[in-house]
Amino acid sequence: MSPCKLTYFKSQALGEAIRMLLHYGNIEFDDIRIDFEKEWPTYPKESLPLGQIPILEIDGKVLYQSIAICRYLAKKVGLVGTTAMEDYEIDNAVDNLNDLRARIAAGFYEQNAAVKAEKMEVIRNVTVPFFLNKLDAIAKENNGHFALNKFTWADVYFTGMINYLNSMVGFNLTENHPNLKKVVENTESAPGIKEWVERRPKV
Amino acid sequence: MSPCKLTYFKSQALGEAIRMLLHYGNIEFDDIRIDFEKEWPTYPKESLPLGQIPILEIDGKVLYQSIAICRYLAKKVGLVGTTAMEDYEIDNAVDNLNDLRARIAAGFYEQNAAVKAEKMEVIRNVTVPFFLNKLDAIAKENNGHFALNKFTWADVYFTGMINYLNSMVGFNLTENHPNLKKVVENTESAPGIKEWVERRPKV
Repeated sequence: MSPCKLTYFKSQALGEAIRMLLHYGNIEFDDIRIDFEKEWPTYPKESLPLGQIPILEIDGKVLYQSIAICRYLAKKVGLVGTTAMEDYEIDNAVDNLNDLRARIAAGFYEQNAAVKAEKMEVIRNVTVPFFLNKLDAIAKENNGHFALNKFTWADVYFTGMINYLNSMVGFNLTENHPNLKKVVENTESAPGIKEWVERRPKV
Repeated sequence: MSPCKLTYFKSQALGEAIRMLLHYGNIEFDDIRIDFEKEWPTYPKESLPLGQIPILEIDGKVLYQSIAICRYLAKKVGLVGTTAMEDYEIDNAVDNLNDLRARIAAGFYEQNAAVKAEKMEVIRNVTVPFFLNKLDAIAKENNGHFALNKFTWADVYFTGMINYLNSMVGFNLTENHPNLKKVVENTESAPGIKEWVERRPKV
């Protein structure tokens, strides 16, 4: 049996950066994919620490916070900094990206249809452009990366989430932001990740 | 001039854990407090990397993501783990706490009054109790801490935020959760933090 098991939906969203980091590090794992419509409603959620996925089972432990999992794996596969300030730079970038994700999700998952339409309008026209300009400037300054002028797990975090973000806002976030596009290209050409992106399920 | 400068509102909320970590580490800093009603509307927000505070200026750099700042300071003052898995445990706890904060804030800052009332009802009766039971069990398991059976920056993160969370939900989150109360007590009796809590502004 594989020593490591990822459980997530049949989607990229919050699980893909974890998959990418595992592939980058050549860490063998079971990639368990739950069908959101067919399996999730009856999934035994009480078996999950916070009732949600992704979870990563490793060395008999169940890890269940996706960003913390990414940071942990990044240390294992060598995609972190070498000083506290370098790691701050990476964490800062990841928190910027997570802010963007959270702002988009707050509109996208709004249950009240009228309120959702209103929120998505602001998100598409104000919030997202604001963040993209900031993030693109950071990526430019770091030569196609989000921190330290080199490939770190912040780049993987963004690249793993990009299709999910695009689908929520309804347009391609990197289209008019060449430096963000470079972050994705750089990540998707990294060893292990390149091969995975070529062969991964198309969902 | 002090080598370190924190700029935040005249409140605890997202700034207090940073203040506590600085005091714990006996790191001298200017504690700049902006009045939300009088000063913030005309504050030059374009001078802030993401248009928001807290920011921490240190060694000529402007740090601006509050959790990343806390993690950075925690490394400096010795409130982190000793292995990647130990740090995962702390990061996991912090992300749980941040999930709770984000869920509460999503209701509290809702602009539509009817939608807000609906959301706050679910938050008070379902979301918060669910999280508090989980968090209290974790704090029990760790003897009044959130990770590693010892005092870490996850405890500081929670304690710095507790009054803010209480004010958003309208009740005392630790009242019926003795182990969460212990986390706060343990943090507020830590050296440096104890003296700060006794003399800090009452807002």
